[in-house]
This record gives sequence, structure tokens and C-alpha cells, in this order.
Amino acid sequence: MNRDSPKPTEGAQAVHRTLALLRCFGDSTNDLSASDLARRTELALSTTHRLLQAMAATGFLEQDSDTARYRLGPSMAELGRIAYHRRELHRAEPELAALSQRTGVVADLAVRLGAEAVILVGGSLDGDNRRALRRPLHSTALGKVLLAWPDPAEREPETLTALTDRTITDPDALHAELTRVRAAGFAVNDEESASGVRTVAVPVLDAADRARFALALRSTPEVLASARLGWFAEQAAACASALEVLLIPPAQRRVAARPPIVAG
Amino acid sequence: MNRDSPKPTEGAQAVHRTLALLRCFGDSTNDLSASDLARRTELALSTTHRLLQAMAATGFLEQDSDTARYRLGPSMAELGRIAYHRRELHRAEPELAALSQRTGVVADLAVRLGAEAVILVGGSLDGDNRRALRRPLHSTALGKVLLAWPDPAEREPETLTALTDRTITDPDALHAELTRVRAAGFAVNDEESASGVRTVAVPVLDAADRARFALALRSTPEVLASARLGWFAEQAAACASALEVLLIPPAQRRVAARPPIVAG
Repeated sequence: MNRDSPKPTEGAQAVHRTLALLRCFGDSTNDLSASDLARRTELALSTTHRLLQAMAATGFLEQDSDTARYRLGPSMAELGRIAYHRRELHRAEPELAALSQRTGVVADLAVRLGAEAVILVGGSLDGDNRRALRRPLHSTALGKVLLAWPDPAEREPETLTALTDRTITDPDALHAELTRVRAAGFAVNDEESASGVRTVAVPVLDAADRARFALALRSTPEVLASARLGWFAEQAAACASALEVLLIPPAQRRVAARPPIVAG
Repeated sequence: MNRDSPKPTEGAQAVHRTLALLRCFGDSTNDLSASDLARRTELALSTTHRLLQAMAATGFLEQDSDTARYRLGPSMAELGRIAYHRRELHRAEPELAALSQRTGVVADLAVRLGAEAVILVGGSLDGDNRRALRRPLHSTALGKVLLAWPDPAEREPETLTALTDRTITDPDALHAELTRVRAAGFAVNDEESASGVRTVAVPVLDAADRARFALALRSTPEVLASARLGWFAEQAAACASALEVLLIPPAQRRVAARPPIVAG
């Protein structure tokens, strides 16, 4: 059997294009036109049309009959739901809701994907705040936690882009920050990602001392006041301990005590 | 700009292959090996490996470091979550939970996708019952509802496969059944899909009298007893009325009264 395309990279290229088109919907809260999608993916419009038609035929996208714009389709909701339940992420929801209620601020759970932290559960998914579910590692508390207790298979981010004038863009400064994060047991993003936003994050650790997830509390610098950061980190750490049980299989679960929170 | 592949259908073929590989995970609760996936999709193993590597690189799949098997990855959980919230499906969850509690049986919400009903919200997604989220239209109460109040753009299913000795496989018998469903205001699947399973379903209707969703209650024939079917259908219809408000935009929402439930 040989159904392979002539060029060995052909199939992989189309996979990357398909997934790039799907990714566009992660960055947008609106329906997207074929030309929007062509521009964002830098694909030819004819290629884009062809790929979009195939994606709509299988229910991965859906085309609005009035506007001809595309949105994510029922197959994506279906498989996403399976992926979500298969990872037991639904078990994290009541824990995050309780943490959010106890602290009065938004609680989010993220994993690392390449050079970004991707929020999969939590308050940032509710309402209309669906824009920024992926964030660069170096400029977020979530990302600092994922970098401070790293998966050895993952590489360090190479470009440290400034998002505000507080973003850490020097690799040496980032290394010093990660050493502080490990010593303190938590990370802070102090308006390094967006002005007016402060976050505190702790790791959800496995037996290999790796942050499988990062758990963040997000609010303003006034609410997450410097004098209370230790308290917020303690609350998050208590929730992270529960998530280590709920989300990590017994064989991979940490048995030693959590690193203590050391507020500076 | 011309980044198109030489053959005009090339890209679409790779899209279908990519989506077919993703679809395999909707039908399985286990992690899948590359050879499992090649067999299920009838792709060459070399092609499959190449596509899987591209899909793992983008986080749409994830490879277990111990078993080398694949599962759905964080990008799928992320985009699925966005698709789910974008369609406001999270607003259906408390309504379905209340319906399930009121009736004591499982409540599910489905949409039509081709010749299948796909469950997107409800009790069938919980626990380990993640196998049968897609079901042929003709053998389910969900499907009969979607066919009885059809989208004119959709075609009738062509092959009516027998799943039990009660499955309706004759097109004329199915048409007669759909006429009964419209007159009664609800559909019944009486062990037509699996032995020991009875379901009652009602439509979530829009202004064009089209079932945008189907809402089902599922249990055994003993619990969903014939004498009580009307009561269960009434409970489901009350929930469907709420979902017409929560899930359908005002401009597309039905203004007339629901079809009454007429228990036979």
C-alpha cells in the first residue's frame, strides 16, 4: 500500500497548516473569514479555502450560513471534551472554584506547550475573557513555575520578548528569578505581562520534581498586595497538593512534602 | 504567493487524514499506538508516523514516554474548551444536571453531525462511559428527533444498519416512525441501539422549526416504563424550553409554543 504523497514532507506540511488554522480560533473570540485565516496563517487564499472546506465537512469547523465566517465545530467540542475528561481535568474544577471563592480572585490551571503556558481550567475561561489562554512562559507566574521545576525534555525559551517595561528579557535575570522562585516555592508576575495584572503561581509537582501543571491566582497589585503574597501562595499551594492527588496517577505522584512557601 | 502543493486535492487529503487520526481518539478510551492508528485509518504506517509526529509537535496529540502510545494533547483540550464555551454549552450543564436529578436518570444533549448524533454535554460524558458519544441517527431517540425536525440542508441517512434486532432498518418504517415522533413531540429508542437501554428524546427547536439539539433521558426499560414515558418526555421538554433560551441567539429563537407532548 502506498498512499503517500510524492514529497515526504507533504503530509506533515498539510498537518501543520490544518493545525495552524485551528489554532487561529484559540486566539480569537470572533468568527473568522477565509481571508482572515489566510492572512493569519500566511497561506494562499485558494489553499485556505480548500483546507477550510475539508475541515467544515468533518465538523471540525462550522461555517455560518449568514456570514460565511468560520468557527470551531462540534467535532472539536466533542474531542476537546474527551481530551479534557481523559486528563481528569474536570476533577480540578471544583478545587479551583473553591480556591477562587476562598481567596476572592481568579484561579487558573495551565500546562506547558513549547514556549507558552496554556490555561486549561479556571476562571480565565469563563465569560468573554478567552483571548489570552496562551501566554509566553518568561512573562507569567504560570510560566516561571513551569520553568523553575522543568521537564528536562523541554528546552528553555530562546526569545524573551518584552510585553511591558517590567518583562524580564535578559536570560541571566530570568535564571536568577527562577532560582528565587524555587527557593520561595512560588512565582510572581508583577505587571510583567500586562499592566494592572499581578499573579502568584505554584507548581503541581510529580515524583520527578517536575511541574506537571502550574496553578495561578490572578488579580490587581492592590488585591494581591505584597504583604499578603505569602498568604495567597499558601492558599494556592494547598489546592496544588489536592491537584497532585486528583490529576497525577499514583505511580507518578510525589511522596515527599511540598516545598514550603517562603514569603520574602 | 504560491505555496500550494502540486495536486489540487493534496492538501484536502492530508486534512482528512489528520482529522481521521484525531477522530480515532473519539472512539477509544485507551491510548493508541501508531500501528493501531494506521490500521483504523487504513493509512500506510510510514504516513501515519509522519502525521503523528507533526500532530505531537503542535500539542494536538501527546506521546506517552513509557509506552510510545498517543493520546489527545493539551491543544485539543484547549481548543475544545474554547469551542464548548463559544457555543455556550457550559450554560446547558446546570440545566441537564437538574433534569437528571429530578428524573433520576442520565440526561444528554446532542447535535447532528452527518449521519450521527454527537453527545456534547451530559451524563454520558462522565465516568468511563466515553465510548459511544457518536451514534447512528436512525437507531437512537436523539437521532430520531434530529431527523423529525430536520435541517433542510442535511441529507437523510442512506444506510440503516441493524444494531439490535429492534433497530429500524426499513426506510419506510423510519419515515412512519418520524411522523409519529413529530405528532407525539418526543422520540423513543426502545432497545434499538443496545439491549437493556431505553431513551426518550425531545428537540431543542429554533425559529425555523429545526432541532438544533436533541435532549435525551437514558435508562433501562424498567425505569423508563411505558406508562411513565409521557412524564419523562414532559420533564425533558421543560428543560428543552430553557435550553432554547440559553443556547439559541434571540434572533433565531422560536416564539411560538413548544409542540405539546402527546403520550400514546
